[in-house]
Amino acid sequence: MAMRVMGFAGSLRQGSYNRAALRAATELLPGGVEMESFDLAPIPIYNDDVRARGFPESVVEFRNGIARADALLIVTPEYNYSTSGVLKNAIDWASRPPEQPFKGKPIAIMGASPGALGSARAQYHLRQMFIFLNAHVLNQPEVMIAQSHQKFDEQGNLKDADTRERIRALLQALLEWTTKLRGSASVT
Amino acid sequence: MAMRVMGFAGSLRQGSYNRAALRAATELLPGGVEMESFDLAPIPIYNDDVRARGFPESVVEFRNGIARADALLIVTPEYNYSTSGVLKNAIDWASRPPEQPFKGKPIAIMGASPGALGSARAQYHLRQMFIFLNAHVLNQPEVMIAQSHQKFDEQGNLKDADTRERIRALLQALLEWTTKLRGSASVT
Amino acid sequence: MAMRVMGFAGSLRQGSYNRAALRAATELLPGGVEMESFDLAPIPIYNDDVRARGFPESVVEFRNGIARADALLIVTPEYNYSTSGVLKNAIDWASRPPEQPFKGKPIAIMGASPGALGSARAQYHLRQMFIFLNAHVLNQPEVMIAQSHQKFDEQGNLKDADTRERIRALLQALLEWTTKLRGSASVT
Amino acid sequence: MAMRVMGFAGSLRQGSYNRAALRAATELLPGGVEMESFDLAPIPIYNDDVRARGFPESVVEFRNGIARADALLIVTPEYNYSTSGVLKNAIDWASRPPEQPFKGKPIAIMGASPGALGSARAQYHLRQMFIFLNAHVLNQPEVMIAQSHQKFDEQGNLKDADTRERIRALLQALLEWTTKLRGSASVT
Repeated sequence: MAMRVMGFAGSLRQGSYNRAALRAATELLPGGVEMESFDLAPIPIYNDDVRARGFPESVVEFRNGIARADALLIVTPEYNYSTSGVLKNAIDWASRPPEQPFKGKPIAIMGASPGALGSARAQYHLRQMFIFLNAHVLNQPEVMIAQSHQKFDEQGNLKDADTRERIRALLQALLEWTTKLRGSASVT
Repeated sequence: MAMRVMGFAGSLRQGSYNRAALRAATELLPGGVEMESFDLAPIPIYNDDVRARGFPESVVEFRNGIARADALLIVTPEYNYSTSGVLKNAIDWASRPPEQPFKGKPIAIMGASPGALGSARAQYHLRQMFIFLNAHVLNQPEVMIAQSHQKFDEQGNLKDADTRERIRALLQALLEWTTKLRGSASVT
Repeated sequence: MAMRVMGFAGSLRQGSYNRAALRAATELLPGGVEMESFDLAPIPIYNDDVRARGFPESVVEFRNGIARADALLIVTPEYNYSTSGVLKNAIDWASRPPEQPFKGKPIAIMGASPGALGSARAQYHLRQMFIFLNAHVLNQPEVMIAQSHQKFDEQGNLKDADTRERIRALLQALLEWTTKLRGSASVT
Repeated sequence: MAMRVMGFAGSLRQGSYNRAALRAATELLPGGVEMESFDLAPIPIYNDDVRARGFPESVVEFRNGIARADALLIVTPEYNYSTSGVLKNAIDWASRPPEQPFKGKPIAIMGASPGALGSARAQYHLRQMFIFLNAHVLNQPEVMIAQSHQKFDEQGNLKDADTRERIRALLQALLEWTTKLRGSASVT
């Protein structure tokens, strides 16, 4: 049985390098791993008064997708030395009661930015969120795609061999981490 | 001439303690300080493809409000050990070129949460954003309103005397900090 | 076979509340858990030129203690919104090649401070260190002992019942987390 | 009258790139700025029982140096995704009553590391400390010297032209920031 990963990227721009990095990841999956990508675009701004009347349909789908997945791959841009409002907003919706679908979930984080740090600051903020949400974020390897504009071609294909190798290693480590956390009931 | 502060809160819930804390702040202003509150509700989710075609009207107003203000008061909830997606999303819109209105702006941060830490984790994430945005966030006092459900009455009035005193001290310190950063051209 | 935990506190003051909290933890162990406390006092200031000639004896013992332990309990004070230099210095020594003994180690963090946040800021800094060191820090519960001067008696006994219960829950969770990470080879 | 900067580096290794970066800074000072370097080597491990009997002589000199300086330049290595224990330990000593010499002090931070992030994680931890200590850390530019082993020659001279230019810009910005915070009584 395959391990099912749900992936999502924290940018809505069609030409986003982070969306491109998520597409690249789907081509670099280890054997026995399937990836479903979830598009955050339909998720509205969080308003707790709206939530009290019922989750919007896009949020229900997002929450169900997380709950069903064996593991998550989160791809974050870095805006203003943190993760994007888009991504934080989606996490805020997903985290609300009654079920909190991140609990116990194995998670890999990666990200791309045009600067030298490759979304590092955004990634550490995300990691702090998952302490509260009690998910199990993979420590290593970290994939920080710096100078992102030089790593993809004009069609958004990841052409940088070293980055491809790092993403492959991240996904392999996520598979092993998920299997370990499952105990004897291996996910593959 | 009065110092004009623009305040905004990172929650859209009508009964939000953070919105209530912002209202309380408008009653606790030192002499010579005026406060304008800005409601983040109309600001849509950030999409850079939308931005490339032009800022939405609500974003233009938000950016202009920041640019006009002598100082900002930001009131943050804490969701998932960070600031809210609502607040981060608004900052992402405001930070985009051509002008970056946070640059050089004196800022005071406060926040409320039902837990023991009173939004501390959210506040430190916000502070990191303003390193990039080159704003001047006041160091002290810090106003972290813990157990927020016990500090306000049913109409959302801040009844806790100690918290009122801390907000008053924060606003006084913001006035002094803004004056100092202005140099000889005092804002009051 | 018992699970062996090595505990250490990041303060050298004899009357330290963090040392007292570590002592309290040794009285609150779940069945099947043994605790060894390690005193950081003999560890000198880190100097890489010294290290190149050989680890000091106290550092060798610290490194061996970590390597032998099934799990760690780290008790951190908060100085200047971060962990103590004492604790960071010990971690710096322990982290150096050839072996890096924190790798894969289950870790529980707790701490005490006289302020309202109970060492929270120190704990998040520690957590970031263990991403690099590839240890597995328990997410929840978090034990942040605020107003520490009110929680211990004059002999340094932890008298606060709620805090005792939280430490007990932390140690129980550490036992379960360590067992889970070990897989079928349960540590107890 | 010149602006006097006190600089110190958080590594005791004689061949340290951070010590070398501090030496480079002394060659890149703008007109009207003088630099005094302080060596942290003699400062012992912090012990509050020792402090209660009186500060060690090296600590007294460190504290007096900070108090006398118009501004500080702190050069931090990155060990284990944070600043060094050496540097944190020195700050812990300096921060203790009766006087807290960092209060109101303008500070520039820079650092070097062999990795891709150039001490970024260490720098953000340091910045959080100075919120408590109520110092005024310069926001921009940030000087993160990545791949440090490629930026210095065998004698420890900073040969990388871009890095030299960034340090020069940092020191110029520190001069302007210090002057601004002083108000009409310019430091130069």
